[in-house]
Amino acid sequence: MITVGVVGATGYTGVELLRILVQHPEVTIQMVTSRSEAGTAVSAIFPNLREHLQLNFCNPDPDLLAECDLVFFATPHGAAMALVPELLAKGVKVIDLSADFRIKDAKLWSHWYGIEHTCPELLTEAVYGLPEMNRELIKTASLIANPGCYPTAVQLGFIPLLKNKLVDPGSLIADVKSGVSGAGRKAGMGTLLCEVSENFKAYAINGHRHQPEIVQGLNAQSDKPVNLTFMPHLVPMIRGIQASLYASLSTDGVDLQSLYEDFYRDEIFVDVLEAGTSPETRSVRGSNMCRLAIVQPEDSNKVVVLVVEDNLVKGAAGQAVQNMNIMYGFNESLGLDIVSVLP
Amino acid sequence: MITVGVVGATGYTGVELLRILVQHPEVTIQMVTSRSEAGTAVSAIFPNLREHLQLNFCNPDPDLLAECDLVFFATPHGAAMALVPELLAKGVKVIDLSADFRIKDAKLWSHWYGIEHTCPELLTEAVYGLPEMNRELIKTASLIANPGCYPTAVQLGFIPLLKNKLVDPGSLIADVKSGVSGAGRKAGMGTLLCEVSENFKAYAINGHRHQPEIVQGLNAQSDKPVNLTFMPHLVPMIRGIQASLYASLSTDGVDLQSLYEDFYRDEIFVDVLEAGTSPETRSVRGSNMCRLAIVQPEDSNKVVVLVVEDNLVKGAAGQAVQNMNIMYGFNESLGLDIVSVLP
Amino acid sequence: MITVGVVGATGYTGVELLRILVQHPEVTIQMVTSRSEAGTAVSAIFPNLREHLQLNFCNPDPDLLAECDLVFFATPHGAAMALVPELLAKGVKVIDLSADFRIKDAKLWSHWYGIEHTCPELLTEAVYGLPEMNRELIKTASLIANPGCYPTAVQLGFIPLLKNKLVDPGSLIADVKSGVSGAGRKAGMGTLLCEVSENFKAYAINGHRHQPEIVQGLNAQSDKPVNLTFMPHLVPMIRGIQASLYASLSTDGVDLQSLYEDFYRDEIFVDVLEAGTSPETRSVRGSNMCRLAIVQPEDSNKVVVLVVEDNLVKGAAGQAVQNMNIMYGFNESLGLDIVSVLP
Amino acid sequence: MITVGVVGATGYTGVELLRILVQHPEVTIQMVTSRSEAGTAVSAIFPNLREHLQLNFCNPDPDLLAECDLVFFATPHGAAMALVPELLAKGVKVIDLSADFRIKDAKLWSHWYGIEHTCPELLTEAVYGLPEMNRELIKTASLIANPGCYPTAVQLGFIPLLKNKLVDPGSLIADVKSGVSGAGRKAGMGTLLCEVSENFKAYAINGHRHQPEIVQGLNAQSDKPVNLTFMPHLVPMIRGIQASLYASLSTDGVDLQSLYEDFYRDEIFVDVLEAGTSPETRSVRGSNMCRLAIVQPEDSNKVVVLVVEDNLVKGAAGQAVQNMNIMYGFNESLGLDIVSVLP
Repeated sequence: MITVGVVGATGYTGVELLRILVQHPEVTIQMVTSRSEAGTAVSAIFPNLREHLQLNFCNPDPDLLAECDLVFFATPHGAAMALVPELLAKGVKVIDLSADFRIKDAKLWSHWYGIEHTCPELLTEAVYGLPEMNRELIKTASLIANPGCYPTAVQLGFIPLLKNKLVDPGSLIADVKSGVSGAGRKAGMGTLLCEVSENFKAYAINGHRHQPEIVQGLNAQSDKPVNLTFMPHLVPMIRGIQASLYASLSTDGVDLQSLYEDFYRDEIFVDVLEAGTSPETRSVRGSNMCRLAIVQPEDSNKVVVLVVEDNLVKGAAGQAVQNMNIMYGFNESLGLDIVSVLP
Repeated sequence: MITVGVVGATGYTGVELLRILVQHPEVTIQMVTSRSEAGTAVSAIFPNLREHLQLNFCNPDPDLLAECDLVFFATPHGAAMALVPELLAKGVKVIDLSADFRIKDAKLWSHWYGIEHTCPELLTEAVYGLPEMNRELIKTASLIANPGCYPTAVQLGFIPLLKNKLVDPGSLIADVKSGVSGAGRKAGMGTLLCEVSENFKAYAINGHRHQPEIVQGLNAQSDKPVNLTFMPHLVPMIRGIQASLYASLSTDGVDLQSLYEDFYRDEIFVDVLEAGTSPETRSVRGSNMCRLAIVQPEDSNKVVVLVVEDNLVKGAAGQAVQNMNIMYGFNESLGLDIVSVLP
Repeated sequence: MITVGVVGATGYTGVELLRILVQHPEVTIQMVTSRSEAGTAVSAIFPNLREHLQLNFCNPDPDLLAECDLVFFATPHGAAMALVPELLAKGVKVIDLSADFRIKDAKLWSHWYGIEHTCPELLTEAVYGLPEMNRELIKTASLIANPGCYPTAVQLGFIPLLKNKLVDPGSLIADVKSGVSGAGRKAGMGTLLCEVSENFKAYAINGHRHQPEIVQGLNAQSDKPVNLTFMPHLVPMIRGIQASLYASLSTDGVDLQSLYEDFYRDEIFVDVLEAGTSPETRSVRGSNMCRLAIVQPEDSNKVVVLVVEDNLVKGAAGQAVQNMNIMYGFNESLGLDIVSVLP
Repeated sequence: MITVGVVGATGYTGVELLRILVQHPEVTIQMVTSRSEAGTAVSAIFPNLREHLQLNFCNPDPDLLAECDLVFFATPHGAAMALVPELLAKGVKVIDLSADFRIKDAKLWSHWYGIEHTCPELLTEAVYGLPEMNRELIKTASLIANPGCYPTAVQLGFIPLLKNKLVDPGSLIADVKSGVSGAGRKAGMGTLLCEVSENFKAYAINGHRHQPEIVQGLNAQSDKPVNLTFMPHLVPMIRGIQASLYASLSTDGVDLQSLYEDFYRDEIFVDVLEAGTSPETRSVRGSNMCRLAIVQPEDSNKVVVLVVEDNLVKGAAGQAVQNMNIMYGFNESLGLDIVSVLP
């Protein structure tokens, strides 16, 4: 049994983390922080937790947080890096669901996030928490940089091809689509129901912050640097990411279906579908599963990988708990054995 | 540990029952039947169950079903009554999620369902499975008539008023709204996304089958026969029922908030909200909870009760499992301690 | 040909007004004001107008506005009353789509809207712009208080009963449901897609600003003061209002279907449906039509009137243009002969 | 003034065609046929037409149809080719919104549509009705093969690049997304609200019927045969198509923004957006406009073209009316000057 704190839990990533943690048999939630809602009952903001969590939000006091074994940050970027050094110094482990420790190059990070990094010395120590790639490092990590939602889907889809040198690394295209919860829970006009429902569009067409994170991850698995065209789209639904990934095959005659099945055979949260089927986002809604399928169009040297995940689970809170399970030696699926609600 | 069978599990009630049962620690699902899908893997129809249930649909053979301790019927009306007598005779317990055994008067049932009842002798034996009213009878029942979705919400909302003789039984109005899953999973034009999304309307305005069921239930708790105006509406969403219940108070000065809180204090699946708040359907999505609030408009002798439930859970599959737990002496919330996914 | 200005056109009521006005053969849109967007092209905010309106938003300068024949206010409450006296004095006609001039009693208005009324002397002069009731007064009015969305639907539904003394005025219940656009186009958390889609609830349960407006309108048509229970609900869709209206009949044997058909025979924007059918909101999406149906439940003294309208059209911008047509002697349906987009 | 008939008007393409035609000043709708609904009022099926069209569906009798100047087919594939030869012989002009005459190669057509073509001799006579490419031929055509929804968007997006030899024709990828109305108005489980809302997926991953139509159209504008990877996706909304088109540039330094603006300068229904903006489907909902934007990712030889249209208007009924206008020498935008409803 470990005690955990959740910093910045008024967002969608935060409430999703709480949903999973309240049902986790090895976890006691000790504190849930929010500056704006300090003093309010968590269940007043999130009525789904009424019967499950009897805590009020409190201010993120580092001394109190230091009483936890593990602290999750579900904050906007910039908040975690202000507290993490002190917590680590006090022996607390940290899983950061924000972007603060995902990119190893502090300058590149600043370019995309528009502020200086205040603890670049931790960037090498931080372990990028994609268990399918970094499980061994995660086991002993003190600081986990939990991957972004798009990066999780795109990396899990492309890596088997890159690692096996089957595609031209300069030919990668990721046409990705996300439900609106990816934009977070904050007042704004852009994600009002009346603005985004019955509507579909590409967004961030001049550059998206997840692109350098993905490229960094793909380069780590490729012998040559990749060139990635990355185009995100907004889907009029709450949850779910679907990625259609395109690449030019550099070799012929490889049975890609078998290759993917073998590659992910031991991964409990990656499900390779039968040939000819297409994964749908609702099949993973609320679950930590990532499902994918491989398509080879006729008379073409292209391969298409279709990937789905729940952006708030495998793309955020679920993966964070998966990382926690690995760090503490729990069964990797503990608390994550969730059946998606369908329909 | 008990073994169960689910007859007719290709509908939304069926898959919801399977979602709950695969996670229930005292249940083994032994067979899942469907005439139309016999031989198909259950997870091929319902991909959310891929990692959780390795069974194929089979034909509903009574001899095989008789090997189960308990059989659930998640069938359209008319199907259960054809098999239930034989199963009961063989010592199998039955929970019928369809309408076959809900109405005690076989003639009234035939009037609304358009066919003859083939085993009217079982109607008195059948226990109406609304645990908040009939818990003692459910404990020893062999045949449970699981309540309809609207009837659950409307009865739980009105009964405290009727039982305490606080309202005019002739003044009841139930303005009820349901998500589209209430119409079931069947090919049809009426519930296509293009027909029902971005749309709202009343339906079944000339009479709905749930009305006689509700009236029967309310009359059982009222000293005078009730008169109920019942108006169902279709909401462009998948799950959830909201009922706004209106009645004329026949007495003054009763603290209705306290009365409801007292009435449901020991009920784990009925949640009386704080005065001034309004329950929302998403707060119970996927959970067995029924939440309600009491409103007394100013300068008025009316009382308004607002009720929400998930039509597929407390209004169907969850309530069925709650009944099962009571019948077998399990903790009443076993397998039902589900946190709603929000957002 | 008249010249018009639109004040506060960055909201949903504003853009809907522009959509209708750009296609109106007797109207030239001379200016469109918005303090926050002054200088921006209208079509940059509302891309549906790209080919139809080549104007920039400008500041609401009264001198410039005074060059228009008619000014529409599509502002939040409080804004119109600050400018209207000056415009009227300069001979400009005004149609106010906000609430500033709807309630005749300045004190009652202040109670509900939380601010002092700055020109109560105009409240008697202002004509309540419900053409079906006040057509003659509208013809010669200089200042129109355009009705609210709920008040339009509820009044059109109840008035034939009240005017003919067929129901107990103390028994009125209006269970009303609105699409999310009724909440306006403003940054906020409450109407984010992730908060309101796949969700249904009653709101404003402790009192809604449209209630006094409705009661004022109904009292004007009733010999005895009405008592109205008014309960609004939020529907996960963009547009549309549906009202289910309940009342106790005080008399027997009246053919209500014929009565409604006769009552509205000459009204081009009120459509009484055939007995047994239920109006749906999508049938009036984008159109100025109000459709209604009358239901008399069996074995009951209740009558139910079902009403639908598009909250932004007959409930706001369309009705404003209908009022304009009447004021200027244009054909009442000019520019309003719009076919709803279905599906 | 011309008289038209619409064959098979119970589908979404049909009702959209009727919506446009009832408002067209040069058209009288003489007959609307449907075998299944013969005798029923059109407005009973499509309540949006109640005030606008007083016709009953009738059977598709060729002799009666021959009294029209022009007949539209809004039928499933296979129906038009059974009637068109007789109608043409009788001097009636035909615009076929189905797929029967879109593909010039009868064998290829049979391969994709699964039936023999019964009048292959008409395939050369039929003019492919993409006005932006074939305006001159359309003027004198008797038989128009109205393009499919995806083919319209994909061709309008790629053609400027191909015609100017700016991209490698072997590198084309079209990641396309459609609202559910693209699947038509027919009973079925796949497009129930409960199956497709809150869900996103690729479909027809093993081949889509629009692919050969697109390739035929692109090859006509390219000096070398194209290779196209085409991946359609289903969006949980009613209307709209968005296409993200990818290609490898074969040349450097061309100002693509200017090139597209010039290419489409005289096209009233193609709108090239300012650089840096992304078209959204709602901006064309209900309108005949196609909007597109050109994106050139940094450090990449790829170009991305983003295209939106309303699948039922520019992708079907609107384009059919545009073709009619051209055939009869009407102003090309007559009856099509529709402002999208937003929100």
